Amino acid sequence: MAQVNEIEPTWNILGDSFPKQYEVPEEVEKKPKAENISKIKLKLQDIQDAHNRIKSDVVFTPVIEAKYVGKNFCNVFLKCENLQNTGSFKARGACNILSSMSPSDKSKGCTVSGGRNYLSAMTYYGFKQSVPINVIVPKDCPLVDKHTYKENFAIVKVHGNDLNDASLHALTYCDEIGSNYVHGSDRLDLIAGYGTLGLELLTQMDKMDAILCPVGSGGLVASLVLAVKSLKPNCLIYGVECSAAPTMTKALQEKKPVMIQLNPTIADSLSTIIASNNAFNIVRGYLDRMITVDEVWISRAMINILEREKMVVEGAAACPVAAVMAGKVPELRGKNIVCVLSGGNINSSRMSRVIDRGMAAEGRLVKFSVALPDVPGAMAKLLAKVTDNGADVKSFVPERAWMRRDIFTVNMLIETSDIHHAKDLEKKLLKDYPHSHFIML
Amino acid sequence: MAQVNEIEPTWNILGDSFPKQYEVPEEVEKKPKAENISKIKLKLQDIQDAHNRIKSDVVFTPVIEAKYVGKNFCNVFLKCENLQNTGSFKARGACNILSSMSPSDKSKGCTVSGGRNYLSAMTYYGFKQSVPINVIVPKDCPLVDKHTYKENFAIVKVHGNDLNDASLHALTYCDEIGSNYVHGSDRLDLIAGYGTLGLELLTQMDKMDAILCPVGSGGLVASLVLAVKSLKPNCLIYGVECSAAPTMTKALQEKKPVMIQLNPTIADSLSTIIASNNAFNIVRGYLDRMITVDEVWISRAMINILEREKMVVEGAAACPVAAVMAGKVPELRGKNIVCVLSGGNINSSRMSRVIDRGMAAEGRLVKFSVALPDVPGAMAKLLAKVTDNGADVKSFVPERAWMRRDIFTVNMLIETSDIHHAKDLEKKLLKDYPHSHFIML
Repeated sequence: MAQVNEIEPTWNILGDSFPKQYEVPEEVEKKPKAENISKIKLKLQDIQDAHNRIKSDVVFTPVIEAKYVGKNFCNVFLKCENLQNTGSFKARGACNILSSMSPSDKSKGCTVSGGRNYLSAMTYYGFKQSVPINVIVPKDCPLVDKHTYKENFAIVKVHGNDLNDASLHALTYCDEIGSNYVHGSDRLDLIAGYGTLGLELLTQMDKMDAILCPVGSGGLVASLVLAVKSLKPNCLIYGVECSAAPTMTKALQEKKPVMIQLNPTIADSLSTIIASNNAFNIVRGYLDRMITVDEVWISRAMINILEREKMVVEGAAACPVAAVMAGKVPELRGKNIVCVLSGGNINSSRMSRVIDRGMAAEGRLVKFSVALPDVPGAMAKLLAKVTDNGADVKSFVPERAWMRRDIFTVNMLIETSDIHHAKDLEKKLLKDYPHSHFIML
Repeated sequence: MAQVNEIEPTWNILGDSFPKQYEVPEEVEKKPKAENISKIKLKLQDIQDAHNRIKSDVVFTPVIEAKYVGKNFCNVFLKCENLQNTGSFKARGACNILSSMSPSDKSKGCTVSGGRNYLSAMTYYGFKQSVPINVIVPKDCPLVDKHTYKENFAIVKVHGNDLNDASLHALTYCDEIGSNYVHGSDRLDLIAGYGTLGLELLTQMDKMDAILCPVGSGGLVASLVLAVKSLKPNCLIYGVECSAAPTMTKALQEKKPVMIQLNPTIADSLSTIIASNNAFNIVRGYLDRMITVDEVWISRAMINILEREKMVVEGAAACPVAAVMAGKVPELRGKNIVCVLSGGNINSSRMSRVIDRGMAAEGRLVKFSVALPDVPGAMAKLLAKVTDNGADVKSFVPERAWMRRDIFTVNMLIETSDIHHAKDLEKKLLKDYPHSHFIML
């Protein structure tokens, strides 16, 4: 990246660290226009101030070396923001906003709407700093989320069918009751708060070649670009999005934030329709790469982090690990890279489902439909056959209603040790039960 | 605890720190006989030597302040051995054993049998230090465990119906092939390795009033007594056992290790039939309390650690947190206490079950059996009723086979936000469907 001499940059960017010897398909536009850079009002000093303001109220989260992710390819370190207060990095932003407010603004209270992690963080620090918080949520807000906000003594109001309705209502409602409206993205004090994560990383990691960071509306990755590129300019910074909501990828392609069509994703907290304007202006030209990962890889990454790294993460937080696992960063072979585990707020019943989905994706949970003769002992024989082959029957549903001649169907969910074991079992079962379907995943 | 002057103790015990103002039902026998103390060959220096030997090969695991456990009662800190190599504190012991071996012993290799965590650790460090490892497992050893040992390039032999058979065979087998038999408990070099956890804690915690540690055969708690009581004598050390396998409680009552009857438990790695002799001799007279916790509290602790602290732990590791949650440590109000999360090796399908069991224990997953009239739309009406009350139907099984007159039964599994919500739902459903059973858990 060439040094931008024609204008006074608001932070120092030195040297170009991008590895030129690799073809990187998603490389983003370099060399931002001067007028864009001068627009950015946030400075490294703001992040350092935020750090001093909030350091006693947020967790200095540990960095753990991954045991399996990236094994034999690169050294992966996990920055555990899932262990942050309220379970996500949003705590840093919320704490910085509230700590920066004047006493008179604090007494007026705040009105907020937005994503689960942001609202949890605002209500948590609102209670801690005695700022009354009004939360506006849409009708389909999950019970457990409302429960969390109320635990933090926030006033919860339900309005509208979706997040947009709720946010619009919040704007008028805050005027009615005379409280401050605090938007959940695009605020510079929010980004300054997030940036403290970058400052922590710089003290925790001796050798850090790259940071992979989940991207929703882009606040976190922008803050890392600002904090880390200022102090350690040759550290690569990559953003990782889920392919269901590629807001930043689209914004960089179109050279401005644009609305996108959303698809359902397990990484639900990345599901935003447009990149934040400030974030876009900060990352533009300084972000080294954007990567997108699909749902199957996110599920596999989540179960890997759960089983191998012993940590609970939400879908969004698993995206950087998914990018490594899916082989999307060949240029980082042998490097020390940090994957930011941005949060761990996933509800338990969804987690059960993720475990099943992740196991299915790895061929460790398979469905098998078998046609059996309707004779005594047929089911016992089938179960014995599966067990003898070292597999475990998790569920077993005979469908007698669809009986045809002397045959009926049994649907089984079977746990195997890996895809090879599953395929081996398929072969053995097909020998005895030719009228069978084997459904992987 | 009175200072023992009549003999030369092998480590320094100073002062009595036990809080006398509380009635503690399970207080253990104090003042050990002199001949017992003189029997203990392990010194603090051995643990310090082990620390220097293994520190570059094991993870200096982080201590995290718990966000919810002990809230409004005491400050709970979690020592995250689930983030250790191989997912448990056994790594420290295994690494110390193998690092202490002579080159000629190393080339002969080791033969081992025992629990999952011990075998994972031995095979992992065996591969790292180029020591061939033979593992003897019984027939019922889970596939996934054998898979782990083989991943670490160990030779896995199956022998016998249970762990006893396998261990006996290992003793003769190691002679046959001329390798070293390495017992999984009661070795002093194993305990010395575990003790490094205590040394780490002393550097990590400024103020530490008590340590709660899971107890199986007692190696870990013995090592903590030795390491921590030597350097910080007024720190309380409590052992926590599952009530299904109270080996150390029984040993302290009987004044010697005795065989006990085992019951099935989710804390399976604590399921040992007798306390280790060396561990017993170390803890006797110096351990401040033994506590037992039951299965329901262990499940609740596990789901709490998973949902609130964002960490994966096995049943054994959840026991100290269970003791705090169950209100078993009233004397620790306002204190800084460390719960040792000893390991995180739980397989995923068991985890799904634990989530369900934990949710059931908290009244968040309930079963409801409803008698419905056999008319069109009856099921749709019932489902709408449940949904309108803010609950979520997880499964729905109509039992037409047991139809009697014009009524049939539907079994539902329903997710609610808490026990109050569940009870409220019960009332509302009973009004419309009087022939119904509500089954909590």
